[in-house]
Amino acid sequence: MPTRPDAPTEQARGSRVRRRSLLTGLLATPLAAVAGPAQAEEAPRVAVARRPRRKPREVTLYAADLPDGAGWGFGLEPGEPTVPGPTLEMVEGETLRVTVVNQATTTVSLHVHGVDYDIDSDGTPMNGGTVAPGAERTYVWRSHAPHRRRDRTWASGSAGYWHYHDHSVGSDHGTMGVQKGLYGALVVRRPGDPLPDQQIVCVFADVIVNGMPAGQAPTFHSRLGDRVEWIMITHGELFHTFHLHGHRWADNRTGLVQDARDESRLLDTRVTGPADSFGFQVIAGERVGPGAWMYHCHVQHHSDFGMAGHWHIADEGHPHH
Amino acid sequence: MPTRPDAPTEQARGSRVRRRSLLTGLLATPLAAVAGPAQAEEAPRVAVARRPRRKPREVTLYAADLPDGAGWGFGLEPGEPTVPGPTLEMVEGETLRVTVVNQATTTVSLHVHGVDYDIDSDGTPMNGGTVAPGAERTYVWRSHAPHRRRDRTWASGSAGYWHYHDHSVGSDHGTMGVQKGLYGALVVRRPGDPLPDQQIVCVFADVIVNGMPAGQAPTFHSRLGDRVEWIMITHGELFHTFHLHGHRWADNRTGLVQDARDESRLLDTRVTGPADSFGFQVIAGERVGPGAWMYHCHVQHHSDFGMAGHWHIADEGHPHH
Amino acid sequence: MPTRPDAPTEQARGSRVRRRSLLTGLLATPLAAVAGPAQAEEAPRVAVARRPRRKPREVTLYAADLPDGAGWGFGLEPGEPTVPGPTLEMVEGETLRVTVVNQATTTVSLHVHGVDYDIDSDGTPMNGGTVAPGAERTYVWRSHAPHRRRDRTWASGSAGYWHYHDHSVGSDHGTMGVQKGLYGALVVRRPGDPLPDQQIVCVFADVIVNGMPAGQAPTFHSRLGDRVEWIMITHGELFHTFHLHGHRWADNRTGLVQDARDESRLLDTRVTGPADSFGFQVIAGERVGPGAWMYHCHVQHHSDFGMAGHWHIADEGHPHH
Ligand SMILES: [Cu+2]
Ligand SMILES: [Cu+2]
Ligand SMILES: [Cu+2]
Repeated sequence: MPTRPDAPTEQARGSRVRRRSLLTGLLATPLAAVAGPAQAEEAPRVAVARRPRRKPREVTLYAADLPDGAGWGFGLEPGEPTVPGPTLEMVEGETLRVTVVNQATTTVSLHVHGVDYDIDSDGTPMNGGTVAPGAERTYVWRSHAPHRRRDRTWASGSAGYWHYHDHSVGSDHGTMGVQKGLYGALVVRRPGDPLPDQQIVCVFADVIVNGMPAGQAPTFHSRLGDRVEWIMITHGELFHTFHLHGHRWADNRTGLVQDARDESRLLDTRVTGPADSFGFQVIAGERVGPGAWMYHCHVQHHSDFGMAGHWHIADEGHPHH
Repeated sequence: MPTRPDAPTEQARGSRVRRRSLLTGLLATPLAAVAGPAQAEEAPRVAVARRPRRKPREVTLYAADLPDGAGWGFGLEPGEPTVPGPTLEMVEGETLRVTVVNQATTTVSLHVHGVDYDIDSDGTPMNGGTVAPGAERTYVWRSHAPHRRRDRTWASGSAGYWHYHDHSVGSDHGTMGVQKGLYGALVVRRPGDPLPDQQIVCVFADVIVNGMPAGQAPTFHSRLGDRVEWIMITHGELFHTFHLHGHRWADNRTGLVQDARDESRLLDTRVTGPADSFGFQVIAGERVGPGAWMYHCHVQHHSDFGMAGHWHIADEGHPHH
Repeated sequence: MPTRPDAPTEQARGSRVRRRSLLTGLLATPLAAVAGPAQAEEAPRVAVARRPRRKPREVTLYAADLPDGAGWGFGLEPGEPTVPGPTLEMVEGETLRVTVVNQATTTVSLHVHGVDYDIDSDGTPMNGGTVAPGAERTYVWRSHAPHRRRDRTWASGSAGYWHYHDHSVGSDHGTMGVQKGLYGALVVRRPGDPLPDQQIVCVFADVIVNGMPAGQAPTFHSRLGDRVEWIMITHGELFHTFHLHGHRWADNRTGLVQDARDESRLLDTRVTGPADSFGFQVIAGERVGPGAWMYHCHVQHHSDFGMAGHWHIADEGHPHH
């Protein structure tokens, strides 16, 4: 069963309290200076990404057929594929061992953007990285913090809004796999990065949004004032301009400005194309209030065809009630 | 009558002296340190954006049919629609109350990018934001400076090269409206931002430039050495690469580098698509001199079709005489 | 004869020792502080771009027909056109006098992006900048460092990953010229910029890569650990998303982060379109090791058609042996 579009909401909501409660204990970043008595009554600081875990973490993705021959998806449980697949997270410096258990009726693979891996975790047919039906395979993804090389130049870190996808179904480039659901988001955070209250993953695959039937797009629900992280991924053949009403972000790694002198370009519309991905955090309804805020592709015949949905921001309690 | 392409020239030229003369009186930015005796003979500093006005400002846009059924446009006076519509400006922190008086024969709306508004100023049919023929409606646009939130994160400001457009003619997304002229530029400045001597607005709507007949593009005229602000907006269905000969800009909020260590990418060609907008200031003919400098879409069949025009930079006096 | 795709390798390899050996003598940048005794055993610092030469440099490009009517190319020697043409380099502040000797059977021209030139070096038919068969013409390209203007604003420098191309064959915009091989890369460096060990130029012209037959793409070869500079240029009618496996770069002027606090977006996939260009340096196989790493357009039908090639990174000696 494809994912309900609001599933990430539920997932993140459950973890919000936990994240906030971990703030004091785990942080050792500039944002986390100890609050003295004079600050006792201040507003709580934003929860931020912790330090990386030294031990590799393990995750299993189960590939399975979607109902009615609609395609394939990845899921965290057997028989429960979602489109998009589960959002995976890493903190710079961590290693993630991703085991794909292929319960689908076709050979699949797992190719990832943004992080480090040896060539045998490349996930391409050419490098022998596929998984036959009934088989499983472990891909090892590493990440790293920015650091200075011995030659005095700087190496960038791995932090970004990345994604993973099949690279083998329908062609050596996974053309059918990415058309029919085999993709998901990967967020790599830098220690100290703000953590969201909720995540919304939005995938444009040709004119389809999040694997919904053609001409439809999911509705997302958020609470006014929540810190909501949008992760936008494109797949397929087409170029789009992702537009969000009433909210905007910065054109940099996090979508957030660093201070009042930050000269990053501010965006509410962004050109995107196949395999491009970006993300940003906004405060839902900040300065604009509750409402049904549209998100849509701004290519006119795409939005007219149905690449347009609503982001419902409600001003109290649980948005579904 | 559609706008003459050089109309912004005239508008800005008239205000140049005024802007410069206001420099000493209004500024309270780092750029505006008091000039002591030793600096008395230095070149004049660039005029910069003033502080925001506290009181909301008012503007009326008259929507009207273009001649010969060519479409519709917005204008500052009844019966004088232009394509693109009037360029509106705000300084971060200001509120603009825009009243649309609909004298056209079709229902129109006004949707804006980049700034803050309540959902009833969204300008979408879904949110009841349209204006019937003969009716009028006031949309309230607010803007804000970057500021630190109570949780210690930074909120970006509203400054940018934005735009407004109809969101209702021909489809719920205004597909006919943006194809046929209902759009214009909105510039939001940060106090201290340099002010231009002249503005050039260039809108690619499908293969049409500034509402001109298909296969034609406007000629722009500037004086050598003037600080000219280009505002580039795209609408419709297509993607383009905007290219300007002999001049370049930085890929950031203002298009200007901050100092010699600014590592923004420098551009003279930029991928753009529907509802994307950007802007920059260049000194006309700086280091390259006068001439007929081309601007064009660099998609080859678009430029061959006529998405190419000239920017005439003259080295003395008024370029029209 | 079209260029062998690995030709830049050979060219750069030959100059690597020279560049490194020049390091001590020519530098006067922050990176080049004198190494004292305590640093004697440290790893060598990266070689960086020298100061500009004051005297204009000269280069001759010979335009010639490609075999079998495949098009035209520029070369450094008579009768040896390559596709892409020779990679030209400047340091900010230098002037390059480029003489085009037209040995082709059609009139050609030379238009350049990013640098400064008078209108008679514009290379457009409109400005009389073409070269008839049998004729020659000298184009003068200037460049400049960032500097502060008298009005206190900053002017950006010329540094960037630019390109040159014909602007006259087949149309006033050179549509046939850029389709059939008349283009090449221009790198403008800022003093202190790291120098690569190897350059790879990759041009997407419609669905053709580096002038290879349709459906094919060149294989590039590098040595593990070498600093490899990719220069990516697009021409023609189409938009693409350039993707490189296992390596990534920053979305700024150089593709390199400046330090651990640099918030530039990190990319391994980038939307690009006609006449857009960008570049970056990566350490071949850094953290991911040797292998056949794919580069390809991520528009699925483009990669399936053949816009996909391999970057072979070998872990010892010369990759061809
Ligand atoms: Cu779209
Ligand atoms: Cu175009
Ligand atoms: Cu492509």
